[in-house]
Amino acid sequence: MSKFQTVRGMRDFLPSDAERLRHVEAAAKEVARLYGFVEIITPIVEHYELLAAKSGEEIKARMYAFNDLGGRKVALRPEFTASIARLMAATLRNEPKPLRLFSTGTLYRYDEPQFGRYREFWQSNFEIVGSSRPEADVEVLALTNHFMRELRLRNYWFKIGHVGILRGVLFDEGVKDEEQNVVMQLLDTKRWDEALRTARGFGVSEKGVMALKEIFKAKGKDASKVLKQVKKNLKEYASSVAAVENLQQIIELCIESGIKFDMIIEAGFARGLEYYTGMIFEPLVPEIEISLGGGGRYDKLVEMFGGESTPAVGVAHGLDRIALAMDKQNVTPKFSKQFVAVIPIGEKAVSKAMELALQLRKKGAAAELEVMGRSVSRALQDADRRRATHAVILGPKELKEGKAMLRDMKSHQQHLVGIEDVVEVISKKTD
Amino acid sequence: MSKFQTVRGMRDFLPSDAERLRHVEAAAKEVARLYGFVEIITPIVEHYELLAAKSGEEIKARMYAFNDLGGRKVALRPEFTASIARLMAATLRNEPKPLRLFSTGTLYRYDEPQFGRYREFWQSNFEIVGSSRPEADVEVLALTNHFMRELRLRNYWFKIGHVGILRGVLFDEGVKDEEQNVVMQLLDTKRWDEALRTARGFGVSEKGVMALKEIFKAKGKDASKVLKQVKKNLKEYASSVAAVENLQQIIELCIESGIKFDMIIEAGFARGLEYYTGMIFEPLVPEIEISLGGGGRYDKLVEMFGGESTPAVGVAHGLDRIALAMDKQNVTPKFSKQFVAVIPIGEKAVSKAMELALQLRKKGAAAELEVMGRSVSRALQDADRRRATHAVILGPKELKEGKAMLRDMKSHQQHLVGIEDVVEVISKKTD
Repeated sequence: MSKFQTVRGMRDFLPSDAERLRHVEAAAKEVARLYGFVEIITPIVEHYELLAAKSGEEIKARMYAFNDLGGRKVALRPEFTASIARLMAATLRNEPKPLRLFSTGTLYRYDEPQFGRYREFWQSNFEIVGSSRPEADVEVLALTNHFMRELRLRNYWFKIGHVGILRGVLFDEGVKDEEQNVVMQLLDTKRWDEALRTARGFGVSEKGVMALKEIFKAKGKDASKVLKQVKKNLKEYASSVAAVENLQQIIELCIESGIKFDMIIEAGFARGLEYYTGMIFEPLVPEIEISLGGGGRYDKLVEMFGGESTPAVGVAHGLDRIALAMDKQNVTPKFSKQFVAVIPIGEKAVSKAMELALQLRKKGAAAELEVMGRSVSRALQDADRRRATHAVILGPKELKEGKAMLRDMKSHQQHLVGIEDVVEVISKKTD
Repeated sequence: MSKFQTVRGMRDFLPSDAERLRHVEAAAKEVARLYGFVEIITPIVEHYELLAAKSGEEIKARMYAFNDLGGRKVALRPEFTASIARLMAATLRNEPKPLRLFSTGTLYRYDEPQFGRYREFWQSNFEIVGSSRPEADVEVLALTNHFMRELRLRNYWFKIGHVGILRGVLFDEGVKDEEQNVVMQLLDTKRWDEALRTARGFGVSEKGVMALKEIFKAKGKDASKVLKQVKKNLKEYASSVAAVENLQQIIELCIESGIKFDMIIEAGFARGLEYYTGMIFEPLVPEIEISLGGGGRYDKLVEMFGGESTPAVGVAHGLDRIALAMDKQNVTPKFSKQFVAVIPIGEKAVSKAMELALQLRKKGAAAELEVMGRSVSRALQDADRRRATHAVILGPKELKEGKAMLRDMKSHQQHLVGIEDVVEVISKKTD
């Protein structure tokens, strides 16, 4: 046995897993095309300072950070958004808005490995930059919905909230941004009591604490009812009311446009990243405890990175988690892989077999050349095991006649055909 | 201006660059399909010990190595082959051979940034594991050739050699493997005199030094002539002769099979990685000094990682360098991107416009919804700048009649159509 293994938290994707992951990634790319997003590729290694700037304490503590050989403090990106904000603040600052930016690739966080959670994970990331309007929020929800449906996931729902509801109370109570972040962080990790105690410490009144408690309680499937209720309870907090109204608008627009997904509204929903300013959401399925992604509006981020004030809304989808959900729901499509095994008999037929394989490939048919020098029967056995659809056998006798034996691997029928004709026959069959 | 930039040696791919890179990657994936390779995805972070094991001193010194938060010494992969060898030595050890494995992604080396050379770079990697026969070597050359042609690269050639020619002399002179590596390393960096001095130090006779000198001189386009000449000069070194004969076989098989590429045979060609044991090659174009990739045979690698003795031959293509070569040769295809701008007039039309956009997307047509709340004329201007093929305008008047204005962005002609019909009209036009 090899003493070498993957690093803890990292993993290999063997062919069938890789195929499923690439299928999910291809679906994300198709959604990007349909919704008018263009791809941006940013490096995995970024300045630590950039990635740490707005990540929130929890992510910051779990970054793969190190000094490169030039002594620069760098880290492996834990998310895409900081890199996109960097671009928006510099290279892309003068591009006409809106920009619809798509990225896909691996991210890194030193979390405790658990079911569906790895330290290297895959995401597709969509951001609409430059629009503060609810249409943009809805587009992000719509494309996520499209993505889930494209992959035939069932029974998924979106957990939806708006960070402005909680923050509105804190803001109207005079709590500073930095202090709000501390409370939001505690809420995100569901430490309610500690959050309330901390809020009191930052000067939140008893009325404010009651309002926060009302917000925690407000959740349910009936968005209209939940939000009406919250609005009533918060009427003394104008900032919270504005947030609720914004969320109402977004959800109404979804419904009016015929975008169909199940949802659970949680007025007290907070997400780990500190940069969210508006609507936030996560897609979920019953089979997996952790969310399949997450997104929302972050209108101040670009500014924080030194750019102009630029509203933005986006979403990141966990591609490997989605692949896992597909596996659990048994909705992975069968990838049909048609190919021809090309088998020479004896050394003299090798170059002819190779020539034939090349011609097949030029015509778009996948061909596996026998490269082990095996007997025909063993090569055929192997082709069968590997589910070749056809085999072409070239022996000295056939070669002399300019022919090859074409075998249908399913029916086991075989017949001689002209070598020139093989290409045409097979490339038709494997179309 | 933002104070944040990419880390030195790293870079962003903006949309047109990203598109070209993905086009190159897609071509690699298509070649993998045609030649019967299955994809394996391995992590970017591996144990330092694994990556350092057989990398050669030069690469080892330039790795992005660091300790993770658990104190493990890890590094960012500088190549794919160590990870593949790890898999072959463990998880895949009992898989029936041959295995044809494909990988694609980013790699990391702390080299001095220069034209076409970045510290994060992209490769596609193909390995045929389990076959020691020349057919397998030829398949690797053939697929690389196919890849270059698929991308319409011109005037490329393969520089081809065989590490066994030089090593054969050293071996027959009694130089140990470790010492051979030192000499090969010097040769790879073209320090000929130092290499010869070092060889003498390891006990190579004057006759041996003369043989090495003959090997350095032997290069040219006429493979048959060059190799015949070398063979004659080396006839007292049986191991070298065997290597020459192996290379002759491979090249003859290429020619007989009708695989057409220009080549330069260099008998004294050495590559940086120590694990090569047989044929080695690099594809080159006149426009770029560094190679577009590199490959060869490495029959002892899996064994070195604790696996069973397993012959293997492979190639890695520099995807970003190939994209650069395409740019230089001006052979990047024009990516036609048809899409429809969907523009509501006034708030009341927004949900209808969104509904229409969703229907278009369901039919496979790309649609960009106006999310800025702009006037029709400004939205149309923007759609024009972004090269929309069509625009659909929905105003209150049109909506009342169940119609929308469909505009051809090229001819500037527009006419009213039923909303129900827009989807059909457009999805036909953008097919």
